[in-house]
Amino acid sequence: MHLVLRSCGRTAARLACRAAPRRGPQALACQRAWLGSTLSPASSTTPGYYFQASVHQSKQAKDYSLPNSSWSPDMMTQFNKYMEMSKDKTWKKLPSYRDILDHMPERMRQEHEEERSEESRMFLRNLDEEGKGFEYVMFLNWSEKRMACVAQLGPYLEGPPGFVHGGSIATILDSVLGGCAMSLLGHVMTANLNINYKTPVPLGSVVLAESKLDKLEGRKVFVSGHVRSVDGETLHAEATGLFIQLASQKTHPPPECSK
Amino acid sequence: MHLVLRSCGRTAARLACRAAPRRGPQALACQRAWLGSTLSPASSTTPGYYFQASVHQSKQAKDYSLPNSSWSPDMMTQFNKYMEMSKDKTWKKLPSYRDILDHMPERMRQEHEEERSEESRMFLRNLDEEGKGFEYVMFLNWSEKRMACVAQLGPYLEGPPGFVHGGSIATILDSVLGGCAMSLLGHVMTANLNINYKTPVPLGSVVLAESKLDKLEGRKVFVSGHVRSVDGETLHAEATGLFIQLASQKTHPPPECSK
Repeated sequence: MHLVLRSCGRTAARLACRAAPRRGPQALACQRAWLGSTLSPASSTTPGYYFQASVHQSKQAKDYSLPNSSWSPDMMTQFNKYMEMSKDKTWKKLPSYRDILDHMPERMRQEHEEERSEESRMFLRNLDEEGKGFEYVMFLNWSEKRMACVAQLGPYLEGPPGFVHGGSIATILDSVLGGCAMSLLGHVMTANLNINYKTPVPLGSVVLAESKLDKLEGRKVFVSGHVRSVDGETLHAEATGLFIQLASQKTHPPPECSK
Repeated sequence: MHLVLRSCGRTAARLACRAAPRRGPQALACQRAWLGSTLSPASSTTPGYYFQASVHQSKQAKDYSLPNSSWSPDMMTQFNKYMEMSKDKTWKKLPSYRDILDHMPERMRQEHEEERSEESRMFLRNLDEEGKGFEYVMFLNWSEKRMACVAQLGPYLEGPPGFVHGGSIATILDSVLGGCAMSLLGHVMTANLNINYKTPVPLGSVVLAESKLDKLEGRKVFVSGHVRSVDGETLHAEATGLFIQLASQKTHPPPECSK
């Protein structure tokens, strides 16, 4: 889940990588600098830090995971259901920004504010028009180590005629499995994503993607999940993910999770 | 690879599915109608049909896999290399359209012209600005049962800061593995996509995604592939895919392919 790789290496990534050719030794050096920076003391964490960071609310940025006029009745119903379940803090809605810098906690964001660029956009938030692509909102259940993503899959995500592209499904699964690992355990890197496609998703559908942290083995984080219709009757896809905790990001595991 | 599911069921998919709720029994009925239509005599094929269909050049539609001003020198070098290798017909450049209807051969396209919609777009071609998202071109090698995709991954495909989203990589792999199966064997449906992520891809990179048809077992089609830097030095990801041939689409397998 590349999405979840966030680091103090934004300088390395943005300045070095964008100035340099994208291939060969310079690209490799760039990658090492960026990955190295995620291992540096500057990005060390305390237990629970990333849970806090993941729910950090940026004061400046627009949160795209709030209702807009493109949301269908199904989407609103699911959103309201999880918001209701969030009242007792069992679930927590996570904000969603277009610039990944806004997902960082304020101190880190300020440090890297000068690197902010209009040029790049989060893959899932890269369309200007509401409702054309991914409309989604994620909720985290810390005590059960679960994440839920309500997603409305718009007409610009087409694969076969009238149905959602398999890459769109993979993108949602990548995000909800990796997002679960990151929110609970800090920086992780995807090692494997294994998807079984069961039933095509009609374009415009609202689906529920869910994930659960299954186990930890050292730095290996095992997460599984699926995509279902919101009534639960149709299993569209199921997936497993293996993520690797970056060394300095290792936090105490959530209770009953480590092996 | 949902991308490759193309059928005479566009009517079912577009009219029935768009008018109906996206979940529950009606959605299931819609899916059955669409999948059923791919099994109908109307979409029967002759050997080699889909190879011809996949390289069909629409007279009306814009081919997005031709050079534009956003293409980097790396992208142009790779494009020119494969175009040179296409001169003796070993490789064949495939066109790429925004509307999947344009990928159909002319007779089928004419039959379904009235269903054409401005509303939907192919996931990989859904951005208006050149160079912001996926820029890519695919080439097919029929005799070696291989496909190659040269892709420039733009700034709107971001996951971690400065790097391409894991879902973007999954989307390219889904397309190049499934595209290989479809071009050689006709309608297929993805059953599994298993991706090992090796090295993050810097945003803006040009990469080479390649796939190869490994074996057939009845209707099961096994394809593998990878994403590498264009100099071949960096392995970014590798994947296997299992696709199911839809019954009436079964063609004679390419030579030395069946088991």
